[in-house]
Amino acid sequence: MPKYTFGELTGIKEGEVFENRKALREANIHLALMAGIDGNPREGCSSIVLNGGYIDDLDLGEEIIYTGHGGNDQGSKRQIRDQDWDAPGNKALLVSEFKGLPVRVTRGYKHKSKFSPSSGYRYAGIFYVRTHKEEIGENGFNICRYYLIKDGIFETPDSKDEIELPKRKNKPKRIKFTVIRIVRDTALSKSIKELYDFTCQVCSKRIAVRNVSYAEGAHIKPLGKPHNGGDDTNNILCLCPNHHVMLDKGGFTIANNFDLIGISGRLNVHEKHIIDSSNLTYHRNHIFIND
Amino acid sequence: MPKYTFGELTGIKEGEVFENRKALREANIHLALMAGIDGNPREGCSSIVLNGGYIDDLDLGEEIIYTGHGGNDQGSKRQIRDQDWDAPGNKALLVSEFKGLPVRVTRGYKHKSKFSPSSGYRYAGIFYVRTHKEEIGENGFNICRYYLIKDGIFETPDSKDEIELPKRKNKPKRIKFTVIRIVRDTALSKSIKELYDFTCQVCSKRIAVRNVSYAEGAHIKPLGKPHNGGDDTNNILCLCPNHHVMLDKGGFTIANNFDLIGISGRLNVHEKHIIDSSNLTYHRNHIFIND
Repeated sequence: MPKYTFGELTGIKEGEVFENRKALREANIHLALMAGIDGNPREGCSSIVLNGGYIDDLDLGEEIIYTGHGGNDQGSKRQIRDQDWDAPGNKALLVSEFKGLPVRVTRGYKHKSKFSPSSGYRYAGIFYVRTHKEEIGENGFNICRYYLIKDGIFETPDSKDEIELPKRKNKPKRIKFTVIRIVRDTALSKSIKELYDFTCQVCSKRIAVRNVSYAEGAHIKPLGKPHNGGDDTNNILCLCPNHHVMLDKGGFTIANNFDLIGISGRLNVHEKHIIDSSNLTYHRNHIFIND
Repeated sequence: MPKYTFGELTGIKEGEVFENRKALREANIHLALMAGIDGNPREGCSSIVLNGGYIDDLDLGEEIIYTGHGGNDQGSKRQIRDQDWDAPGNKALLVSEFKGLPVRVTRGYKHKSKFSPSSGYRYAGIFYVRTHKEEIGENGFNICRYYLIKDGIFETPDSKDEIELPKRKNKPKRIKFTVIRIVRDTALSKSIKELYDFTCQVCSKRIAVRNVSYAEGAHIKPLGKPHNGGDDTNNILCLCPNHHVMLDKGGFTIANNFDLIGISGRLNVHEKHIIDSSNLTYHRNHIFIND
């Protein structure tokens, strides 16, 4: 029996302000009265409340870096141990990332940002967990962070479910899309894929449709925020879609000698393919979900 | 040794008009002087010229339905046999679809659309082949069609390479991105994935990162143009990313009795999962690249 409801709630509008956590709970937005993360490892995270918390949190309105829970001393509130990706709320947010679940976001009056209400709690709408990042907090312990982006960044004027058209005269419509895979070859990823003849560097599989091969150029240190990896062949692998997903989500990582960590095997690396080991180090330290 | 150059060409601006096909060739936009498709099955299609041709072609400016070549009687210009996905230009366009290659588009004066020049050939910029569709032409024979969308429909104001932010005050910047996978769970695809416990209905694999499972909701009759499939559980399968790519690209299809066609095996279908056989029929007839 599911405990949480996911996504938009009937009758609740973005921007609506609630007096306190109890009102937020009664509106079914966020059930927990204290915890910032609503959810569990089985269902995922349905809602987060930003209200003070970690000083490193970043809030740019439509993108948020949110820190998971745990590791703090109850009395001093100082971090005294590593945060754990397996802690219930942290795992719930990972589940939301992997499964693409909508996460309701609410900002409280104690949250320091220009988007916060001066009193009470303002519901900010639906976000998605785009990626996660393990970092060392200011007290030297690991913290689990999540990068969320707001839904509705794509619109489609006349089709139901997919990114389609560039015309965006009005406010973007919110759309409920399922899976969209957009693949664009840069010259760089093309060259890497050709070097490996479109075979996956992890499993040696090659997807082909009538002899037309398909592979994906996967960035070890991901492009864009918050990882800001480089679009350079020293950061690109040729992978099948399955191993691309697993690499992105931290399901395995790669040692500097190309042994795989988290799954068995070894990365096949062509003699002409120079991989920057600092990208591997980054992936091991920040993206791999370690046991 | 590659024959074709792909993507934007230095010094060539969108909207530039060329006097004739020879001038287009000299600018390196489109090498063939007669054929509408520039490319080969090895490298893909680097450029197409729209200039009359098939009456069913659709040109909405930033989305184009383009018909492949072949099947016409030389004299009467009537279609007298099926077009063939293996014909060099048609295969080249499929390669561009699978590999996400940029395709230059140029409109000629004979092309009937409000985007065409009154004389000469106007270079329209970079498009991508989003999907293909096999249809029955007006003379009763198969035609091979391609749905192209214009590049630059996404922008990103401050990150280098990925879809990130919703702010689109100005004209979208053209960005060169590589692979972006955006997964959103609708309630429907979520229910199907849960029904199968995130195991692929084709290969029974389940991708998991620390016990968090990952699968994709794949539409049999694709959402959006030009297929316009429904977002309904009777049109959704639970697949691993590899088989999702293959289904979308027509690498295999499914008989009404759930035998797989194009690859060996049988689709695993849960007794509670009612699949609409008209969606399977659509996929077999319009998307599967038949041998």
